[in-house]
Amino acid sequence: MINIAVLGYGTIGSGVVEVLNTNGDSIKKRAGDKIAVKYVLDIREFPGDPVMDILVHDVDIILNDPEVKIVVEVMGGVEPAYTFVKKALLMGKSVITSNKELVAKHGATLIDMAKERDLNFLFEASVGGGIPIIRPLNQSLTADEIVEITGILNGTTKYILSKMSDSGMDFEAALNDARSMGYAERDPSADIDGHDSCRKIAILSSLAFGMQVDFEDIYTEGISKISDKDIKYAKSIGARIKLFATSIKENDECVYAMVAPVMIKANHPLYSVNDVFNGIFVRGNVIGDVMFYGSGAGKLPTASAVVADIVDAAKHLGKNIWTIWSSRKLELADIDLVEHRFFVRASVSGGRDLKAHLDKARELFGDIEPLDCVVEGEYAFITPLIKEKDMKEKKERMEGLLNVIRVRF
Amino acid sequence: MINIAVLGYGTIGSGVVEVLNTNGDSIKKRAGDKIAVKYVLDIREFPGDPVMDILVHDVDIILNDPEVKIVVEVMGGVEPAYTFVKKALLMGKSVITSNKELVAKHGATLIDMAKERDLNFLFEASVGGGIPIIRPLNQSLTADEIVEITGILNGTTKYILSKMSDSGMDFEAALNDARSMGYAERDPSADIDGHDSCRKIAILSSLAFGMQVDFEDIYTEGISKISDKDIKYAKSIGARIKLFATSIKENDECVYAMVAPVMIKANHPLYSVNDVFNGIFVRGNVIGDVMFYGSGAGKLPTASAVVADIVDAAKHLGKNIWTIWSSRKLELADIDLVEHRFFVRASVSGGRDLKAHLDKARELFGDIEPLDCVVEGEYAFITPLIKEKDMKEKKERMEGLLNVIRVRF
Repeated sequence: MINIAVLGYGTIGSGVVEVLNTNGDSIKKRAGDKIAVKYVLDIREFPGDPVMDILVHDVDIILNDPEVKIVVEVMGGVEPAYTFVKKALLMGKSVITSNKELVAKHGATLIDMAKERDLNFLFEASVGGGIPIIRPLNQSLTADEIVEITGILNGTTKYILSKMSDSGMDFEAALNDARSMGYAERDPSADIDGHDSCRKIAILSSLAFGMQVDFEDIYTEGISKISDKDIKYAKSIGARIKLFATSIKENDECVYAMVAPVMIKANHPLYSVNDVFNGIFVRGNVIGDVMFYGSGAGKLPTASAVVADIVDAAKHLGKNIWTIWSSRKLELADIDLVEHRFFVRASVSGGRDLKAHLDKARELFGDIEPLDCVVEGEYAFITPLIKEKDMKEKKERMEGLLNVIRVRF
Repeated sequence: MINIAVLGYGTIGSGVVEVLNTNGDSIKKRAGDKIAVKYVLDIREFPGDPVMDILVHDVDIILNDPEVKIVVEVMGGVEPAYTFVKKALLMGKSVITSNKELVAKHGATLIDMAKERDLNFLFEASVGGGIPIIRPLNQSLTADEIVEITGILNGTTKYILSKMSDSGMDFEAALNDARSMGYAERDPSADIDGHDSCRKIAILSSLAFGMQVDFEDIYTEGISKISDKDIKYAKSIGARIKLFATSIKENDECVYAMVAPVMIKANHPLYSVNDVFNGIFVRGNVIGDVMFYGSGAGKLPTASAVVADIVDAAKHLGKNIWTIWSSRKLELADIDLVEHRFFVRASVSGGRDLKAHLDKARELFGDIEPLDCVVEGEYAFITPLIKEKDMKEKKERMEGLLNVIRVRF
């Protein structure tokens, strides 16, 4: 029997207990031993729930119990999670977490601490809910140099963009709809401003490139500027707008990462990632393109990933599973130097006709052609490849500019 | 430095050497040590190829060299591969293989032999080319009871069915096209009759259910009966025909497996698996639906999977990586008892009109409705759920029957 403790009895914590109960027999077969939850830590009480028999309010009971071999941190947030996890490792316990803030901020340190002590620090559930992606990056794609990882990693923004696209809602209406469905937090800024996706791509990039990618260095843009008019134009050219979290190695000197809405067409593998699924696309220099799809961050899919980590830690008591994520910092390339094509939408105003506007736009962007007009009083076009830096400068000089969205086709 | 030997210098074997050369540095970082190819075994000579320096014709040189820690078997076929692999394990060497015939036939035995000797027998490349699926099943989906695995696992049949659908070719023309493109073997029966897919789903099923699934027990039907007329009808209802290799656990008493063409619609996750990609869909009782897509069985993708196994074996010298595939046989349910819906196509003949035919068909299948006619002199319909056994009997009694295809929508 291998004793574990679960820190936090919220959605994921209760899911972990449920999965261990539901699939106890097959998990025992796979782990080689029975996994027993000895303690659950929470500040709350849960009257009537059988968890009361093992509920504790003091983390030291868990940390000081030598019988507890694996600690499962599913509280979220950096503190007190970081303090608890560090102490658990110092006390010789392996740690599993689903906490993307913790992993993005302190992953390299905690991996090193685990390695030095022949313990494990595992975090499959921190990115992509149930989708196996951390372990495949660590253990399956090891023959490759990863040249790109791109994910649709945030459920709230995916829901809002789908709603806007399917029902023609504007951003505010779609956000309110997401709130009423319970898909958006009361303060949804971490999701819609891209910070959630940013932490997740920081984790994936650190694993892919084997060095610390600081999430603060990643250019991050949310979806709040996307309007129903952008969606109309996208539809008119067979494109969709998705919030991409992406990290690309153009060469040894240029690795860049960004979170931003992009327009893609049906030939992009992530085009058909729909409501229910998250998707992560990986390109390696020998394997070519691989994709991982799966049910996103629901309670049970996420708990499934946590429990898979528990099984792995149970099979590897006393032996560290190698993770290639050193604390050496990867200096990301200046995003200003990266080239993209851009969708540009602007108003026909100032008493001038479309031709006069196009002439001005062509002075900035060369020989662009307007898209078929789908919004009265506006025009739109797609630029050739332009450096981000130059685009910034051209945006300043562009009259009647309404929005700009990166294009990947 | 960890010395390995490669048995067979064909497409995959030369790909393995190429990947180890191309990505040597990053592979060294991930394996923790340099991987060196000490020998390549082949009966042929390769004048001018640097492989000549390490080429041997006698497998005993490899087997008897204690410096060789890992043997990579990429010859294909059951013999002499099986003999060589067994001897390598007996001599204390871990073995990596891409050989689906070998794994389907002797996987459980070889896994046991490796386990008893603290060695590893790994076979990621035997299914799905570069797609990581064996390791995810073994190590990532361990919290789940797997209830379904369905894959599109054979490139030749995927190409032929796509060709028929995109260009309206009949089966023979599409097969000849596949031959001329080098996608079909001179004797393509292993592919088009479903035997290749059958071995692959036997491997995946054994891993998913943890018991030996004999490929000889799997109901297997190929694509040679699919006509351009079936494709026309499929298109007319927004469906596609794919060769599915599938294994489903309906409950503890009923696990069945089959390889057969099926009609699916856009709501099926494997609908959009296109020319370049293979796809494997897995449903777990807690994780929900997960999918793995990737470049199929090309030289470098497959070599990438082989090399990832080499890295894993190198990291686990002296320690067996647990594989849940016991030699205990899983008795598959009798396919006769499984229910499906069927697409049925028949000719309007015998001097009777459509109504008379439909009346007869309704006597057999209940209140079926004909699909809109897209082939002169024929009619088609989709049955309600029927047991396979009953369908067999009804097929005998059905007048003018032309073809029957299982339906999954």
